[in-house]
This record gives sequence, structure tokens and C-alpha cells, in this order.
Amino acid sequence: MRIDVLTLFPEMFSGVFGSSILGKARDKGLVSLNTVNFRDFSNNKHNTVDDMPYGGGGGMVLKAEPIFGAVEHVVERQSEHSDGKKPRIILMCPQGATFSQEIAQELSGESHLIFVCGHYEGYDERIREFLVTDELSVGDYVLTGGELPAMVVVDAVVRLLPGVLGNDQSAVTDSFSDGLLEYPHYTRPAEFRGWKVPDTLLSGHHAEIVKWRRKQSLERTLDRRPELLEQAELTPEERRWVNALRIEKEQRVKVAKERL
Amino acid sequence: MRIDVLTLFPEMFSGVFGSSILGKARDKGLVSLNTVNFRDFSNNKHNTVDDMPYGGGGGMVLKAEPIFGAVEHVVERQSEHSDGKKPRIILMCPQGATFSQEIAQELSGESHLIFVCGHYEGYDERIREFLVTDELSVGDYVLTGGELPAMVVVDAVVRLLPGVLGNDQSAVTDSFSDGLLEYPHYTRPAEFRGWKVPDTLLSGHHAEIVKWRRKQSLERTLDRRPELLEQAELTPEERRWVNALRIEKEQRVKVAKERL
Repeated sequence: MRIDVLTLFPEMFSGVFGSSILGKARDKGLVSLNTVNFRDFSNNKHNTVDDMPYGGGGGMVLKAEPIFGAVEHVVERQSEHSDGKKPRIILMCPQGATFSQEIAQELSGESHLIFVCGHYEGYDERIREFLVTDELSVGDYVLTGGELPAMVVVDAVVRLLPGVLGNDQSAVTDSFSDGLLEYPHYTRPAEFRGWKVPDTLLSGHHAEIVKWRRKQSLERTLDRRPELLEQAELTPEERRWVNALRIEKEQRVKVAKERL
Repeated sequence: MRIDVLTLFPEMFSGVFGSSILGKARDKGLVSLNTVNFRDFSNNKHNTVDDMPYGGGGGMVLKAEPIFGAVEHVVERQSEHSDGKKPRIILMCPQGATFSQEIAQELSGESHLIFVCGHYEGYDERIREFLVTDELSVGDYVLTGGELPAMVVVDAVVRLLPGVLGNDQSAVTDSFSDGLLEYPHYTRPAEFRGWKVPDTLLSGHHAEIVKWRRKQSLERTLDRRPELLEQAELTPEERRWVNALRIEKEQRVKVAKERL
């Protein structure tokens, strides 16, 4: 997979693209990670890439030319090695679709991703309308630019590419695939500052451990992200147990409120 | 504000903490951004920070000792300059509360934030139970570690600190505060490759421009994030207009389906 990131701040990416899993994937030749400064594609002598908005108002707007120019440059450069598949051109912006694991899966099947990162300016609407194929947001919070969101998407996608994760690493994350939050983990020492590891985990009874972990997983999901339970695959017995637990908790809250 | 990030990959942070808004905020002395490698707090000769999980299963688990040790180190170091406020100790993990602009606002009022970043391992549960004050996730997708999520939270929080953003930059982002998606922006040229800027924006009629932008904002929000409209502040007239638009769209979808 080839990934190009268009940004005014390429130096932001060196640490993230060079370290850990992304750095290793790059070293192994599993992914090519590149940054392109779209200021190099401004068509004026002052190298400006933004301008005042038509219709007035505060803030600056990123011009169409340098973004179109930079995207066309990386698409052309790549086309000679291309498998005929069109690149995905992804605009990072708060108005985009909320990024999810399903989108990460889908993007991991592509051969060329191009990310466009603005930086506290707006984008000229013609970029949205006539250039990009996707618009993505990583969550409902305001950031100073699209650079960190692009890194987040790159990380989530690259770790799904074949050969990137070792078995040790993928095992842990596989536990998300059942749609529940993870059960609690413990490692040595068995007692730390007086806080002990639950007896079940030290018992060696495999079946009991599996049962304990599943119950913890269900309980934690009910506590923290109850909406995930609707989509999760539960046995009828588990569904009944979760419902009983839910009712019990509601009852406790009610009693506590009445006491006030 | 002081921010300490506990990580096994401090080199990932240099580009992001040194550039753009975060770099400038740091240079102006508005925030102190530090990384601490918690491997320096491992209490064994091989400097290991993780171990096998009790009860078996794949993956490794981050041990309690080095995390407790590193957190206590940064808390102690800071206490001499402290205003008496306790630090917030934030664990980045998929089971955490989903980060939002409200949480960013809240954290921006603190004086010391400590982030704990694991990296494809689980955390020993005693870290969760007896050390941290908060658990945060940035979204429902799987990443290789807590480093990028910590950068996202730091960026969202620091840009809210007084003096960090210039007027130009804050103006754009203020447009989120009405709970709607932004209207389309355009800048020069008025015609780019045959694609023209809407006439209204070139007209100079201020009242018409305001009306056009508000309608675009409402329409885009209805198209892309209809759930945001429930919370947004709309006039009764706008509410009626949006409802009419919604019904019209549903009708069009129905007609299109019947034709198939």
C-alpha cells in the first residue's frame, strides 16, 4: 500500500511514521508512507495557500489550486506502478463521516490512499465537490488541524495489512472483535501494595477463568458502553443474565435516590 | 498547564509537540509538554515492563510497578510548584469514555495532566482501579497504542488555553459552537476550472449571505449528521424549514425506490 499525506506540516509526521508498528511496516516494505507539502504547489510568488473567504467573515480558506495540484502530482507519480485501481482521496475534516473500525477494514483493501490535511482554515468547497472521494472525522472534538486525524486513520489501517502485526499483538486486539469491552487483565506480582489478583485467575481452572472473563466483559460493557450490547453476539443465557444485572442496577440507583 | 505523557515511545511525540500550535504554545510558555519513558521505572534487571497474563491467553500485560513508579515520580517532581490541585491521571484505552469537546473544555481548566499510554498490550487492572482518575478513548477504532490518542487529547485541550490561538484561528472554529456543521467556504479564484463560486457570496448583500450560509449549514447537518440537529439551537422558523426539507428528502428516496 502507498500512502501520501498532503500537509503544511510534514515535520509533524516523522516521529509517528518512523516509530513502532508504522516504522516497522515501512522498514519491511509493507507500506510506503510519504508526506507532501502542498505549499510547493501554490501558483503565486508569495507561496500562499490560503485567502480570505468570499462573502466575508473571519478565518482563512485553503485555496483549490495547491490542493488539486498536489493531489494530481502524487496520482501521476503513482500511476506508472499502479494496479489500475483509483486512489482514495480522503479529506480530514470535522464534517466528515465518523471514522470507525469498519471504515479502517475497508480502506485496508485499497492500494493507494491520499490524505488531505487542512490546518485551522476551511477548505474551498470545490476541493470537497470535485476532488476528494471521502471525508473523514475521527470524533466530535475540535483539533488544530487534520494532521493528527490522518495519523490516527493511517495507524488503524496499516495495522490491518497482512504481515504488519505479529501474533502476540494481534491476539490482544482480537478480543475486540466480539463487540464487547475487554475483561480485566492482571500480571505479576500476584500481590502489589496489598492489592491481590482475583483468586479465579490464579486457580488454574481453565473453564472457570473463561467464564469469569466473559462475565467481566459483559458487566464492564453494561457499565460503560451499554449501547454496544445491542450489536454484540450474546447467547440467550448471557442476554438473560445481562438483563437481570441491568434491572438490579436500576433498582439500586432507584433505592439510593429515594434515600436522598 | 503542565502535561506529562508516559510512553515507551517518546520519540513519537517530538514532531507533534514541536510543530504548529503546540510548538508555539510551548515556546510562549503557555504549556509545558514532557514525555517520560516508563521503562526507566521497571524494577528488574532486564527492564521489562510487561509480562504474561494471569489465567493465560495471548498478548502481554503492562505491569503495575513501572506505571505507578513513573506517575509518582512526575507527581512528586511537580508538587513543589503546585497550586495544590491534584493532577488528572488519564489512561488512554479503548474501554474509556469517548473523548468529546465537553471533556476537552473540562480538562483545559486543570493545571497538571498525566497521560498513560499503553502499546498493544493490556493494562494490569490495578492501574485502572487504584492509580488513574480518568479513562479516555478517542473513538471506536483499534489503534496500535495510546500515543496518538494522547496527542489528540493534548491538541484539543491546549488549543483552548488562553493565549494559544490567535483571533484568526479561533474565528473559524467558533462556528462549531452553534452545534451545526460548517457552511461551505470559497476563496479566489471566483472561477476555477469552470467551477464557479455561488453568486450570493459575490453579491455583497450581507443579509443574503448570512441567510445562505445558515441554510447551507442546516442542510449539510441534516444530510450528514441529522442527530446533531436535536441538540442545536434553531429558531421555530428554522425548525419548520428543516422538517419540510427532511420530509421532501424522504419523499424523494421513496419515489426513487418505487421506480426500481
